[in-house]
Amino acid sequence: MEAKTVSQSKTVKAMLVLPPDSNALGTMFGGQVMSYIDDIASIAAFRHARQQVVTASTDSVDFLRPIKVGSMVCMEAFVTWVHKTSMEVYVSVISEDLKSGERQVCASSFLTFVAIDEKGKRLEVPPLIPESDYEKDLYNTAEARFERRMERRLQSRKMAEKYRT
Amino acid sequence: MEAKTVSQSKTVKAMLVLPPDSNALGTMFGGQVMSYIDDIASIAAFRHARQQVVTASTDSVDFLRPIKVGSMVCMEAFVTWVHKTSMEVYVSVISEDLKSGERQVCASSFLTFVAIDEKGKRLEVPPLIPESDYEKDLYNTAEARFERRMERRLQSRKMAEKYRT
Amino acid sequence: MEAKTVSQSKTVKAMLVLPPDSNALGTMFGGQVMSYIDDIASIAAFRHARQQVVTASTDSVDFLRPIKVGSMVCMEAFVTWVHKTSMEVYVSVISEDLKSGERQVCASSFLTFVAIDEKGKRLEVPPLIPESDYEKDLYNTAEARFERRMERRLQSRKMAEKYRT
Amino acid sequence: MEAKTVSQSKTVKAMLVLPPDSNALGTMFGGQVMSYIDDIASIAAFRHARQQVVTASTDSVDFLRPIKVGSMVCMEAFVTWVHKTSMEVYVSVISEDLKSGERQVCASSFLTFVAIDEKGKRLEVPPLIPESDYEKDLYNTAEARFERRMERRLQSRKMAEKYRT
Amino acid sequence: MEAKTVSQSKTVKAMLVLPPDSNALGTMFGGQVMSYIDDIASIAAFRHARQQVVTASTDSVDFLRPIKVGSMVCMEAFVTWVHKTSMEVYVSVISEDLKSGERQVCASSFLTFVAIDEKGKRLEVPPLIPESDYEKDLYNTAEARFERRMERRLQSRKMAEKYRT
Amino acid sequence: MEAKTVSQSKTVKAMLVLPPDSNALGTMFGGQVMSYIDDIASIAAFRHARQQVVTASTDSVDFLRPIKVGSMVCMEAFVTWVHKTSMEVYVSVISEDLKSGERQVCASSFLTFVAIDEKGKRLEVPPLIPESDYEKDLYNTAEARFERRMERRLQSRKMAEKYRT
Repeated sequence: MEAKTVSQSKTVKAMLVLPPDSNALGTMFGGQVMSYIDDIASIAAFRHARQQVVTASTDSVDFLRPIKVGSMVCMEAFVTWVHKTSMEVYVSVISEDLKSGERQVCASSFLTFVAIDEKGKRLEVPPLIPESDYEKDLYNTAEARFERRMERRLQSRKMAEKYRT
Repeated sequence: MEAKTVSQSKTVKAMLVLPPDSNALGTMFGGQVMSYIDDIASIAAFRHARQQVVTASTDSVDFLRPIKVGSMVCMEAFVTWVHKTSMEVYVSVISEDLKSGERQVCASSFLTFVAIDEKGKRLEVPPLIPESDYEKDLYNTAEARFERRMERRLQSRKMAEKYRT
Repeated sequence: MEAKTVSQSKTVKAMLVLPPDSNALGTMFGGQVMSYIDDIASIAAFRHARQQVVTASTDSVDFLRPIKVGSMVCMEAFVTWVHKTSMEVYVSVISEDLKSGERQVCASSFLTFVAIDEKGKRLEVPPLIPESDYEKDLYNTAEARFERRMERRLQSRKMAEKYRT
Repeated sequence: MEAKTVSQSKTVKAMLVLPPDSNALGTMFGGQVMSYIDDIASIAAFRHARQQVVTASTDSVDFLRPIKVGSMVCMEAFVTWVHKTSMEVYVSVISEDLKSGERQVCASSFLTFVAIDEKGKRLEVPPLIPESDYEKDLYNTAEARFERRMERRLQSRKMAEKYRT
Repeated sequence: MEAKTVSQSKTVKAMLVLPPDSNALGTMFGGQVMSYIDDIASIAAFRHARQQVVTASTDSVDFLRPIKVGSMVCMEAFVTWVHKTSMEVYVSVISEDLKSGERQVCASSFLTFVAIDEKGKRLEVPPLIPESDYEKDLYNTAEARFERRMERRLQSRKMAEKYRT
Repeated sequence: MEAKTVSQSKTVKAMLVLPPDSNALGTMFGGQVMSYIDDIASIAAFRHARQQVVTASTDSVDFLRPIKVGSMVCMEAFVTWVHKTSMEVYVSVISEDLKSGERQVCASSFLTFVAIDEKGKRLEVPPLIPESDYEKDLYNTAEARFERRMERRLQSRKMAEKYRT
């Protein structure tokens, strides 16, 4: 399997923030932001794997600043690390005030995806080549995030089973 | 401010999983699940605070099992801890196969919300009274989660600022 | 076929009333309320029958009070009577002012559903066991509603055929 | 206030039935049909009153035949009777198989609307002039429907109050 | 193949302009208008051909007047000319102020559709019989529009290929 | 008013083509493509003007190739010419097969927008600086397109007025 660079999976999406996406204060629902984050991240993962992908997990999302109705939001996603059949994707969410042009980081997150065939069987994905300093930085710290995630997944499963309705 | 029990904020939502919510494999998009999690959690937080709320953060979400089109999904949310102007909410996502009746835990997450007035100023929220063993368990472990979250938020802000487009 | 209690089909859905669901006066469209009523009722019928169901009829819906944007609406549905392949479902729609906590009955309706297989053939459904006084009351008055409905359906078909474009 | 003919409020809407409007059997959700019925009926009422209107009630809806995905549905609505501040509107739902051209009546219903100002105060509406035999027929039988509806509304309110959660 | 009149494909759609369809100034998005134009035009073409159709092109759309939220928009479409496997459809968009009843032409366009089978193979469509003066007028000028369109399509393809990302 | 380069308005949007956007053949509705074209073009115009914009016209759109459900579509828009209060924007629509990575031009169009204040009064926009050969090419041919458009708008208005319902 031929290795691919990080930039081959880089995916960008600009969009207007419209009233149906926002609460009574005119700021975007957190859940809507998360839905868009998953959407752009899954495209980046699919483009790296060239196989259908499904979301395995989303790391925490911190909403650093509110995103206002009428502003533009620009999401960017790229694969940061791969491990056999799974990929880690980083997404950043930048808002742009369309009148002033001012841009602000509003949220960011890591997600993991797995590549699968039609029967749901996991498929191996191509190796990743980080190029820029920033990409190398994210790549080198990925294994530690992976291990924390594995541990967390175990706890999450336990907690969910403990409390069932 | 009068304290409230956990059960006063308990909120339930049953819904059918429809094709527009699902990918090519007939399973629900991770982003759609996250959007519904935020939606039900924000109602629980609003009912505890009796004030408008906004999402401050979402902890990691692990997708333990796929949710199939045509099944029912049942989400449940309640406030687990409060801290001045912020609330921690726990959400569990259970799927039910409508033909067999089999129920499975598919995902769960903690979110935090803050109560605000029309100008976006933070407002204090009522104290919380955990009653059942399970509620007490979640309440007693909340401060540790809060501290990890504060630390994580700092890192998240740094990372997002470091990589700006 | 094993009989089931009323509570086994009880289904609850809480949701925020958002601007896209409302008219120029900030109150929920009647048609949107009816769509949500059918949605929750069909889940309750499906859970009783454990078979795919389709709506056969909706009795009249009276909008007793307007439902305001920004409030929560809580719908509850359960099977009240069965007759061979068809089920009668009762739905109540309660609004909750999220700031004051005040709850009001806004609408209610009876719907009927039939269980069908993939070819559209009708399937028998399990007997129903009413338990509480309220459930027994609804159960005992169901046959009279059923007969009025049969008569009405005949008239409705005649009228619809009489006026065709 | 100048009287208006029935045909002045006649409103027509043709639309394709798309997959998001349909269940697992490829037929349109009953609730979606009801939502479209209310939508077209409210336009007819608004055009008669030339004032904002809200739905007061929907009479029963019988689903006479399933509406298939991929077919066209044609809805027609017109005012059939007026009473001070309220209007009765008749809606018929016809499906058309786009390949064969065959048309079938699928559902029909009477709805009532009231005209209101910005504060929600009821406003008088213009008298109605039925012209064709069919329009006169519907006009002359309207008072009986009105009385049954008043009685029904009373019962509906009682039942809804009796069973509160 | 039996010829059909223009009026056999005439299709009408009335709808309310709702907030989600509109920009910050309370007027309908141009793209939303174009989407509705294509929707109604495709139904008219399908009804003439009685075969599945796909859009081949849209001529220019000029937005002559803004369409306001809260008004009604009435679209009308009919086939104006046919050429082997393709049809030209004319669509007009009229807005109606629901309070004053005033109607204004807001946009109009010609679109072309081709009829195809399940494998995407083009299918011949029935000849067209224009009846009124207006229909004859549109019919007689159609060939000139067809030729300009063919030329334009060639240029459009060249331009799109020249600038690829 | 300070001039701006073409690249300052360049806006990109990648998205998955989902079933609700597609017809029975699994290809994207023409009207949906047009709606997305208008959406991305309006963002590019807004970013050049830093003022609210509305669509004045859309030139013809030729659908060169069908866009399949499950593929990715990538839209790119930038301002190509300005004239007092109006801007011409070019949009290209490229599809990418997510499994093979193959990219194809599917459609392209020119749209015009005008910048307006809250009362709908037109506002002047900054001059434009084309830089690359391609940008200069589009800039130099824009005046001819502008004149054809002015002429066309006149005819379009006449035709729309001639045929009123």
